[in-house]
Amino acid sequence: LLIIGERINGTRKRIGAAIRERDAGLIAQEARAQVQAGADRIDVNAGTSVADEVKDLVWLVDVVQGAVDVPLVLDSANPEALTAALKRHRGRPMVNSISGESARLTSLLPLLADSDALVVALAMDDAGMPTTVDDRLRIASAILTRTDEVGVARERVYVDPLIRPVSVDPVQAPAAAEAVARMSAELGGAGTVAGVSNISFGLPARNAVNRAFLAVLTMAGLTAAIIDPTEPGMVAAIRAGEALAGRDEFCLNYIAAARSGALAG
Amino acid sequence: LLIIGERINGTRKRIGAAIRERDAGLIAQEARAQVQAGADRIDVNAGTSVADEVKDLVWLVDVVQGAVDVPLVLDSANPEALTAALKRHRGRPMVNSISGESARLTSLLPLLADSDALVVALAMDDAGMPTTVDDRLRIASAILTRTDEVGVARERVYVDPLIRPVSVDPVQAPAAAEAVARMSAELGGAGTVAGVSNISFGLPARNAVNRAFLAVLTMAGLTAAIIDPTEPGMVAAIRAGEALAGRDEFCLNYIAAARSGALAG
Repeated sequence: LLIIGERINGTRKRIGAAIRERDAGLIAQEARAQVQAGADRIDVNAGTSVADEVKDLVWLVDVVQGAVDVPLVLDSANPEALTAALKRHRGRPMVNSISGESARLTSLLPLLADSDALVVALAMDDAGMPTTVDDRLRIASAILTRTDEVGVARERVYVDPLIRPVSVDPVQAPAAAEAVARMSAELGGAGTVAGVSNISFGLPARNAVNRAFLAVLTMAGLTAAIIDPTEPGMVAAIRAGEALAGRDEFCLNYIAAARSGALAG
Repeated sequence: LLIIGERINGTRKRIGAAIRERDAGLIAQEARAQVQAGADRIDVNAGTSVADEVKDLVWLVDVVQGAVDVPLVLDSANPEALTAALKRHRGRPMVNSISGESARLTSLLPLLADSDALVVALAMDDAGMPTTVDDRLRIASAILTRTDEVGVARERVYVDPLIRPVSVDPVQAPAAAEAVARMSAELGGAGTVAGVSNISFGLPARNAVNRAFLAVLTMAGLTAAIIDPTEPGMVAAIRAGEALAGRDEFCLNYIAAARSGALAG
């Protein structure tokens, strides 16, 4: 399972301030801490400033790739910012995200066609966020028809079923697990990805819910998780979930992770 | 979900010695620690001494019920020990366990018929432990036919799908989760129970696997768990799993547990 570290997000107050002040030390530290904790990729989101997003995102790419060796997830819906960041990125990038919304899809598909980037595809469209599992599958399928048309292989696309808080919708977690299982089986090789901690929005002691849900989604077949890998027990939940799902032959990865200390905390 | 504390088991060296030495203080402390951590019932197992089991089990019942107010799980296959312990027990007892093995079933069914005890029913028979989910369901169903015949209501029986180590059998965890879901749906109101930590036998850092698997089984509908509730994150995994499964309306139990500090550790 691909672990995407979510901490470098300009909508977070501390990170937003670090971006505005060009505090490369803090950003580099956030990147290193996440890789140390097990991140395979680092998500970089420059925040909400439309005027500055192009140069802010490029700056983030430079700082993070100067600090760590893992590839990034370029988190923006702005074609101009993504174009600049894709040029600057070393290695194979991932774009977060396209969706079934017509304007977004039309503006971002050419960027994907012109690169080898992986991409997150949110299962939502012009009608908004779907509620049923069937709707999620239908929207995902429609997006994949479009990515097929521009020559983006299924394996490059990670469909996000969109996790809503269980405090708002009590059937959200089983529905998401079912969506992940069906997407894995029915979408011709596309991956799945989820912003796991959305599930616990509005609850106290969010970590226990995040960990439990991450284990459940890993068992369901999730192929990428957008998480804070420094949050206690998150990487352990993934490694345990992989072992439990039979996705880790002879539990060798689990055993190696335990021996390296990666499951502590 | 009913939490059954498993720590007072005479096959554990320290507990076996305490039973032989009649160290009531240590046993009482083990009982209190488990109730404090969230146990709804305490399992008492006198260990392997056939000669002493009757008086050892009765002693355990007296000591534990003198220390805590929760009812017990009388863990024995010895009809004489169970008869004596059932007499001594205050409140509604639970027996651990019957199975589909003919001799065991024949000797223990009369005790159940003569009491209001709940009972754990292991999904195994004279042919041994089943490997497929269908076999587990078939054996459970055969046991329930026998308990029906002696007037034991389905609601009194908790079927145990028998958890084998994932290190030995890589499809064990999904099979167990499927068995729990099907048993919950197909066995006419019988409960389900599992000795969760068996899954991690032979692995390092067992706790992360135990926690993840407990969350998965709770999502699958498990109604009772035999665990060490003092093990970090186990009760939190249950409360989180209940919230995620929609088994906790408005997440009120989860929120209350968080506020009381029951999810710490």
